[in-house]
Amino acid sequence: MSLVFRTPISIRFAHCDPAGIVFYPRYFELINGVVEDWCAQDLAMSFHEMHMVQGIGLPTVHIETDFVKTSVMGDELLAELRVIKLGRASATVEIRMLGQDQDLRLTARLVLVMAQVQERKAIALPSALREQMRKYLVS
Amino acid sequence: MSLVFRTPISIRFAHCDPAGIVFYPRYFELINGVVEDWCAQDLAMSFHEMHMVQGIGLPTVHIETDFVKTSVMGDELLAELRVIKLGRASATVEIRMLGQDQDLRLTARLVLVMAQVQERKAIALPSALREQMRKYLVS
Amino acid sequence: MSLVFRTPISIRFAHCDPAGIVFYPRYFELINGVVEDWCAQDLAMSFHEMHMVQGIGLPTVHIETDFVKTSVMGDELLAELRVIKLGRASATVEIRMLGQDQDLRLTARLVLVMAQVQERKAIALPSALREQMRKYLVS
Amino acid sequence: MSLVFRTPISIRFAHCDPAGIVFYPRYFELINGVVEDWCAQDLAMSFHEMHMVQGIGLPTVHIETDFVKTSVMGDELLAELRVIKLGRASATVEIRMLGQDQDLRLTARLVLVMAQVQERKAIALPSALREQMRKYLVS
Repeated sequence: MSLVFRTPISIRFAHCDPAGIVFYPRYFELINGVVEDWCAQDLAMSFHEMHMVQGIGLPTVHIETDFVKTSVMGDELLAELRVIKLGRASATVEIRMLGQDQDLRLTARLVLVMAQVQERKAIALPSALREQMRKYLVS
Repeated sequence: MSLVFRTPISIRFAHCDPAGIVFYPRYFELINGVVEDWCAQDLAMSFHEMHMVQGIGLPTVHIETDFVKTSVMGDELLAELRVIKLGRASATVEIRMLGQDQDLRLTARLVLVMAQVQERKAIALPSALREQMRKYLVS
Repeated sequence: MSLVFRTPISIRFAHCDPAGIVFYPRYFELINGVVEDWCAQDLAMSFHEMHMVQGIGLPTVHIETDFVKTSVMGDELLAELRVIKLGRASATVEIRMLGQDQDLRLTARLVLVMAQVQERKAIALPSALREQMRKYLVS
Repeated sequence: MSLVFRTPISIRFAHCDPAGIVFYPRYFELINGVVEDWCAQDLAMSFHEMHMVQGIGLPTVHIETDFVKTSVMGDELLAELRVIKLGRASATVEIRMLGQDQDLRLTARLVLVMAQVQERKAIALPSALREQMRKYLVS
């Protein structure tokens, strides 16, 4: 049975555009935050640890997103993260954001690659991190 | 012979993350700016005209992006926009960003939908706008 | 005895610049979020209620900020908000952000003005809101 | 006769909030961009050169801003930068943004400090940079 990482997201004034809805680039800041929270809270490998201690990072090399329904300021969303595919150096994750009635707001699929920051080259996922990620792999 | 909309993009300090490269959500602000410039400069329909005069907008309902190569502050990129598909109420555009050696930094495909802002429903593209967009349709 | 509004702030990867510290414009997004949370949580007047129901807003017309000490990703800060001055249509608030050792990271003073959004003119603070704000007025 | 650095600024959709006006934290991104352009274009010391070659930076330690008049998407502003005070390790600059009728939108005063990035300590302004800055010092 695979795990799902869930975290709440508050839609703020700062996220919204002149049409009163979330400006889509802000969704990607929120999506990045979901990955960040997952790493820190559930994978025992914070971005701080990666970047400032180990000199590694988890850049996004591909992302595709369907914006299914608009969100407005004050909305309280729930984000869900699942692992779709786990490679040697990469992980494909799916993130969904849901409204208060469980209505789907967006679905995003991201390919994350473990990288050595200074040399900007892909490296294998640290095995402890990879084992943690595997728990979220959809079977 | 179809047209290509081209516009320069300067990578700023504000776009870059602790790894020294563009933080990917910032690319989407830049991508939105490319669409905005295209509309204002070549399609005779600025976002100001859409939102503040006509009460319409061009939200992005789907986007998929490959981040091919990283960019750093000070990079001077060239963005190119082509129309891939033109529907009654929507346009699918492809945006590429190139470095100074014509090296590909990213490719994004966006589905833009013409919408009535207040009621948040799709409407047909105004015919004058659609005719302008058709000039950029890849044959 | 005056109240102090306190709320936690997590410094994210998205807030940090190539020097690895918070990029100062991001602090202003966080500062705006502190005011937003104060209004929603303690003043019974969310930004959603203001903007989308009542057609009013609370724009910042003046702000001065001392960035006392840098913050890095992963820092868990505490924000404190106090009211310094309360006018008929405006409130001057002071926001401090503290690190985990109660070390001061920044101090900001903002003048917020109650405004009618469409006509962009100042109006008196609604009396119920003003009475709530008064509880935070430093004596 | 002191110089003034001037650069145009386009107010974009991305800068505007649900009230249809510039969200003030975005002004600080634009203000930072004015300093960035000044350094690169007129002071012969780009942020890229500072951060990625010399390991130095020019963080803002104090800023105070008056938002005099709102700006909306599509506005074409002119930014002006003057040096108010020049210290050994710091420069105080004033930035104004003007609308198309020369109407003042905002005034900001920033204290910039030359710093060694890794060790996060202030250092003297490089003398060549300081001499360039002096040309913009209001007499």
